[in-house]
Amino acid sequence: MAPSRKNTIPAATVPRLSQYLRKLQEIQSRGTTTISSRQLADEVGTNPAQIRKDLSYFGEFGIRGVGYDVDRLIEELKKCLGLNRSWNVIIVGSGKLGTALALYRGFQKQGFNLIGMFDADSAVVGTDRGAGPVLSINKLEKFLNEHEVHIAVVTTPSSVAQEVIDRLVAAGVPSILNFAPIRAHKDKSVILRQVDLSTELMTLSFYLDK
Amino acid sequence: MAPSRKNTIPAATVPRLSQYLRKLQEIQSRGTTTISSRQLADEVGTNPAQIRKDLSYFGEFGIRGVGYDVDRLIEELKKCLGLNRSWNVIIVGSGKLGTALALYRGFQKQGFNLIGMFDADSAVVGTDRGAGPVLSINKLEKFLNEHEVHIAVVTTPSSVAQEVIDRLVAAGVPSILNFAPIRAHKDKSVILRQVDLSTELMTLSFYLDK
Repeated sequence: MAPSRKNTIPAATVPRLSQYLRKLQEIQSRGTTTISSRQLADEVGTNPAQIRKDLSYFGEFGIRGVGYDVDRLIEELKKCLGLNRSWNVIIVGSGKLGTALALYRGFQKQGFNLIGMFDADSAVVGTDRGAGPVLSINKLEKFLNEHEVHIAVVTTPSSVAQEVIDRLVAAGVPSILNFAPIRAHKDKSVILRQVDLSTELMTLSFYLDK
Repeated sequence: MAPSRKNTIPAATVPRLSQYLRKLQEIQSRGTTTISSRQLADEVGTNPAQIRKDLSYFGEFGIRGVGYDVDRLIEELKKCLGLNRSWNVIIVGSGKLGTALALYRGFQKQGFNLIGMFDADSAVVGTDRGAGPVLSINKLEKFLNEHEVHIAVVTTPSSVAQEVIDRLVAAGVPSILNFAPIRAHKDKSVILRQVDLSTELMTLSFYLDK
């Protein structure tokens, strides 16, 4: 996919593309080779027009009356999402959430290599929380200097999250996934995503409150 | 807000409304009383047209050239998101992720009351993982019969997640937030949301891969 084309994809479309990919991988594993926009829409719980619009951003390879070739669509989505290569990931904060994430199996499957885990608590340093021995946060800059880290996952307490993010940014980490419930500030060049559990709960309450 | 009006809000808009709410609560705590769509857009990282469109779904109370009244907008958003009341929440699965969620402070602040936590492991039952003594999963139906539970958070291993969801649905729990990486099936009347960490990672890799 040409970068110019990729730049036209709206931010809101990207998470949906990743949902389509995972759904298609499931469909592929069931042996299905072709799928219509309606079938895919039913599987992911959206409407066919949305599917057609989202997929139109990166090529016209659905065939009217036949549908999409599952293998080819998976390849295109992986290419588009940057998943036809691997990414190095670290986790900063080896508490319960950090450990839960380190043990999460979805990581490796899609090409995300967990190469290090950091904590400030000296009692925890050296223990294995799912990603090999936990390293001291004091060694963060040294590690980042010696390893190419593409994504840092921040699961520290809120009180230190901004300081950790600043250090990651200063050391050149290009993207951060922050779970600490703070409004994190960062340099414009850094990609930061915030996982917010209250958004999920509020979305449920929106639908509950009829 | 009239229910008929609420029903016109598209699904994709709801998570954004919750982001606006949290941002506005922050802005309110800084003592700001009025905000333009441009200022709010800058704060949440979107564009003013998106803000105006999203907020138009539930009333025309922005004043051209002046902006939105922060207090009033917060009230309207809370009403719209069903946050002007409280919701009872349980967590099923008291492993690392479940415990991390139980200890998460954002819950209570927005009106979500964590009233119980369940696990299948008898070694864990009776211990406190952040939400009072963990109850045996065998007591799930009895508990649901005796308490009104609005939201069940599922953080069990994947292998048992569907069974747990089926039991919650059968017992009448109206909404489920599932963290287990499975494609959960459910009754049409039940609201189910899936938190998927691989979607977050894939979104980062989309932007990294330029």
